[in-house]
Amino acid sequence: MARILILGAGGVANVIAVKISQQPGTFSSLCIASRNPVKCSKIAARVETALPVTTARIDASDGASVADLIRKEGSSIVMNAALPEHNLPIMDACLEAGAHYIDTSAPEPVAGAYELFAYRWQLAYHERFQEAGLTGLLSIGFDPGVTNVFAAHLAGTFDQIQSIDIIDCNGGSHQLPFATNFNPVTNLQEVTQPALWWENGKWKEEPAFQTKKTFLLPGLGPSQLTRLYHEELETLVERITGLERAQFWMGLSKDYIRHVEVLSETGLLSMEPVDHEGIPIVPLEFLGKTLPDPAALGSGYTGKTHIGCLARGLVDGQREARYMYNLCDHEKAFAETGAHAVSYTAGVPPVVAAELLLSAHTDWNKPGIWVPEDLPTAPMLSRLSNRGLPWQLIDGDKLLF
Amino acid sequence: MARILILGAGGVANVIAVKISQQPGTFSSLCIASRNPVKCSKIAARVETALPVTTARIDASDGASVADLIRKEGSSIVMNAALPEHNLPIMDACLEAGAHYIDTSAPEPVAGAYELFAYRWQLAYHERFQEAGLTGLLSIGFDPGVTNVFAAHLAGTFDQIQSIDIIDCNGGSHQLPFATNFNPVTNLQEVTQPALWWENGKWKEEPAFQTKKTFLLPGLGPSQLTRLYHEELETLVERITGLERAQFWMGLSKDYIRHVEVLSETGLLSMEPVDHEGIPIVPLEFLGKTLPDPAALGSGYTGKTHIGCLARGLVDGQREARYMYNLCDHEKAFAETGAHAVSYTAGVPPVVAAELLLSAHTDWNKPGIWVPEDLPTAPMLSRLSNRGLPWQLIDGDKLLF
Repeated sequence: MARILILGAGGVANVIAVKISQQPGTFSSLCIASRNPVKCSKIAARVETALPVTTARIDASDGASVADLIRKEGSSIVMNAALPEHNLPIMDACLEAGAHYIDTSAPEPVAGAYELFAYRWQLAYHERFQEAGLTGLLSIGFDPGVTNVFAAHLAGTFDQIQSIDIIDCNGGSHQLPFATNFNPVTNLQEVTQPALWWENGKWKEEPAFQTKKTFLLPGLGPSQLTRLYHEELETLVERITGLERAQFWMGLSKDYIRHVEVLSETGLLSMEPVDHEGIPIVPLEFLGKTLPDPAALGSGYTGKTHIGCLARGLVDGQREARYMYNLCDHEKAFAETGAHAVSYTAGVPPVVAAELLLSAHTDWNKPGIWVPEDLPTAPMLSRLSNRGLPWQLIDGDKLLF
Repeated sequence: MARILILGAGGVANVIAVKISQQPGTFSSLCIASRNPVKCSKIAARVETALPVTTARIDASDGASVADLIRKEGSSIVMNAALPEHNLPIMDACLEAGAHYIDTSAPEPVAGAYELFAYRWQLAYHERFQEAGLTGLLSIGFDPGVTNVFAAHLAGTFDQIQSIDIIDCNGGSHQLPFATNFNPVTNLQEVTQPALWWENGKWKEEPAFQTKKTFLLPGLGPSQLTRLYHEELETLVERITGLERAQFWMGLSKDYIRHVEVLSETGLLSMEPVDHEGIPIVPLEFLGKTLPDPAALGSGYTGKTHIGCLARGLVDGQREARYMYNLCDHEKAFAETGAHAVSYTAGVPPVVAAELLLSAHTDWNKPGIWVPEDLPTAPMLSRLSNRGLPWQLIDGDKLLF
């Protein structure tokens, strides 16, 4: 029985809370803390009949305050669903107050400075977590997260894995002209940064939106995807040995790209502050305030998300392709949790990770800092299907179009 | 010999200053005042060898400060090239300090409240200007301004004028993905407000971008124009009697409309303040800060602007169509003034108006508040050609396509 502290009160935090509340035998209480008490209370109201819930106002970038809250709540696991920019101070707080740590994403790398790749700073906490007897599970949402587990699992099915292509295609419709499915700043930075992929032992780079490819995705049909950089590539190419190529593909509709191009051309995606009546305003952060709240998109969202990992490799000297994927229905996700499938797919895996962390019978509770592919894949894969995220394994050549 | 005070330091103010400086026999000195001293100094540097120039920092919305500046500078004519929102306090200042007043545009009407049409408030100053022996010339840029003069002149060539179609098509290219040619707030409000036109004695309304029509424009060729509301229609339909229809058409490229649609869909054209870290920020005003400075577009701007007035009416019982227009070359305008043709066409007419105001031999100096069609057209038309804005009169049916 563990007391859980959720940091953040967006769509993913909401799903985490609902999924926590579905297992009162595993999780004994819940505290939801964010900068926005109204959002915290809204989530609390959804789950408070299932288990004891408190809320708190917190600045997640302030590690000392987070440590105080962990101690006050007696939390044994911190589920970080705040902005990835706050990962490090929250990890500091876990070390200080003695709590396990789970998050779902890493900050974007800084363009032109890829030595500052995202996980480097978090992985540097490994010894300190080990010495404290604490576990930190990094980026265990769906992508990154389950996609890393898929990749690690698939690697074990070949004599030698050669390439991975991670695919993320939201085939749903939120019925709005334009909205991002998660934090607009994170989303718009992610899609507009230069596309990076791993090939023959090094990172290659091209401008955003340059390479597009159509895949035949089960459940969605022919889908045009755009190559971009996504953070799981960083650890996958280091941990899965022998990869000749690793790429990430995202489904971005023409209409989505049209909006992003205009916003870019009009200066609104810049992170450089602009003087407005004497006040420095970061355009992209301000844009985040004028766009629809991603957590409010759930109602009326139809269609499905499709996320998977396509792996190619050798088996008995023959090239084979295998594909593992999940399809998640927006309407079903909303009916269960009040959040759409993008939040659902990101919010369910960290709860499964918390279950595994609490289980005596897996390696998921060993002290240190881990990314998903460091850990046994079977316990995660076997539980996902029972927690609302069933997956399929098919012949990867079926995606060719 | 008149001492001139220019309020504003954008592209139009720059053209006004250059044109003033070309006639040192008419204008004896110049003061350039705006919120931005750097921009004022830049304009001053361009003209200071031609006549005595001073600069001042001023908040044009503060009538008392403007009056103080008029007195300090001994200005006899105030050329208002600031935002049209400041027209009224500047007119107050002219009355208080005893200066003639000239401006180039009126504020946009408030959607859903067309009884608040723009000129009403300025025209209400008529008696006060008359009593003070001062002249106020409203909206004497190109459109509004010369287009009103064209309409009034054409009305006199028919036994009965029946319709006018004012056409504004910038056929030039500023080589940027997106930029407005004058103040972004004014421009984007203008094109996105509901389109209004006058037909059979009343105003009709439709959503923005709804009606498009292709005209064969001399100098530009076939050009798709979009119907929208522009302020000169307000006074033209009252002063030119017997009009069955009056419309305004603007050339908006597909790419321009694409940008405007995205900016609208992402909430950036709203004038409703949005809370950003505790500070209320008006999205459209902030957008104005991230877009290119219109006054900085001149260099590299190629092509021509085309602005005209198409009039239809009866002559000896027969329907005839006549078209008066000006073509203005961006590169030539830039070479002469350092500003593109959009600023040039708006900045030259008020200087001609100031000349006429100072001339003993026209009716342009009579006390009161006037719009261009109230005044004799010949003196303006005859001078425009000599001041860089030649016009043509052709058979209007040549525009049909």
